[in-house]
Amino acid sequence: MTDPKEISEGVVDLLGVIAYLELSAFDRMAEDARTAPTLAGRAALASMAAAEIGHFDMLSAHLAGHGVSVDDAMRPFVAQVDAWHASTRPKSWLESLVKAYVGDGLAADLYREIASWLDPETKDLVLTVLADTGHSAFAEREVAAGIKADPKTRDKLALWGRRLLGEALTQAQYVVAERDGLAELIVAGSGDLSGIAGLFRRLQQGHTKRMQALGLG
Amino acid sequence: MTDPKEISEGVVDLLGVIAYLELSAFDRMAEDARTAPTLAGRAALASMAAAEIGHFDMLSAHLAGHGVSVDDAMRPFVAQVDAWHASTRPKSWLESLVKAYVGDGLAADLYREIASWLDPETKDLVLTVLADTGHSAFAEREVAAGIKADPKTRDKLALWGRRLLGEALTQAQYVVAERDGLAELIVAGSGDLSGIAGLFRRLQQGHTKRMQALGLG
Repeated sequence: MTDPKEISEGVVDLLGVIAYLELSAFDRMAEDARTAPTLAGRAALASMAAAEIGHFDMLSAHLAGHGVSVDDAMRPFVAQVDAWHASTRPKSWLESLVKAYVGDGLAADLYREIASWLDPETKDLVLTVLADTGHSAFAEREVAAGIKADPKTRDKLALWGRRLLGEALTQAQYVVAERDGLAELIVAGSGDLSGIAGLFRRLQQGHTKRMQALGLG
Repeated sequence: MTDPKEISEGVVDLLGVIAYLELSAFDRMAEDARTAPTLAGRAALASMAAAEIGHFDMLSAHLAGHGVSVDDAMRPFVAQVDAWHASTRPKSWLESLVKAYVGDGLAADLYREIASWLDPETKDLVLTVLADTGHSAFAEREVAAGIKADPKTRDKLALWGRRLLGEALTQAQYVVAERDGLAELIVAGSGDLSGIAGLFRRLQQGHTKRMQALGLG
């Protein structure tokens, strides 16, 4: 792809954690697809899962082009990402959809923020990876229909959405605390501690908008 | 995509069964990917799974272009395809890989045979869908390494490969027996009963070649 050339520890960490987020999102969505009440729903969630693998392949090729194995880059993040999934295991089809929708959106917002700190080549890659997979409309429609059919689910799903964000931020803090390269990248990128606070605030705002789009705001 | 125009019952059946084979292959491979001993193996099987969904989306769009919902087209085949998967549930990572490899190859051979009987538009679609996903090399390498590490697995995997084919042919016969449109398409396409026998023989030969490529022939 490109000539092997050095990329910083922080960028390897960043691409590694994104790659494992994609691979594990694939995994979870593929599992959740099996609980779909209709074949159309099953196919829609399977398509969302498949899109994650397309992204994963791009990250893997980019890392390989710099002489880094995606396995090595991902390994430090497996435990924390798995912990997030274990603590947010959907108990219903609608919870699965909200998780896929909210998780994809949160990841996209985060990647977009981070992309602005990177060298042009890595930036292009990250922006390509976060391109909307075009499945949001399905989730919005399905969740709206679910709430209409059973209005009691609305409050439960709203709580669920809040928990997804909370657990994600908790695990993200562990990850950053453990990885010096990643922490440096974030501090340098966001400027200082108040920059990081601003980043978290913007992620929170994006999440709130998505919950509103799902009728859960 | 195209103007809605009539397609025969047999072609709807054919595209429906292929679509559900793709969707359920996605499902099984995604599940099996979780048992991979390495992150690289998990990513490789996840990529094979994702490729199936790319094919599924093409079939779904084609059917929609002819005014047929992919759900309706798939529904008659869910029970038999699920039965095949239930009767061939891999018990190890190597069994998963052999199943993915052999199943993909068998499906590709079958689609190629069938494509030659179809109108040019459907033929192009089917030939695109069966295009090699380029993951065979990974399975061949991994199975070879597994046999080298534990030579006792060779005979078990060889038996496993034979069972995969046997169960597939059994379920295929049930499917054809139940669907008049599909049966007509196959009889018309292959000429007569001896044509069908020839088709089965060629599928068997393709399977034998694949087992040899895996070191299990």
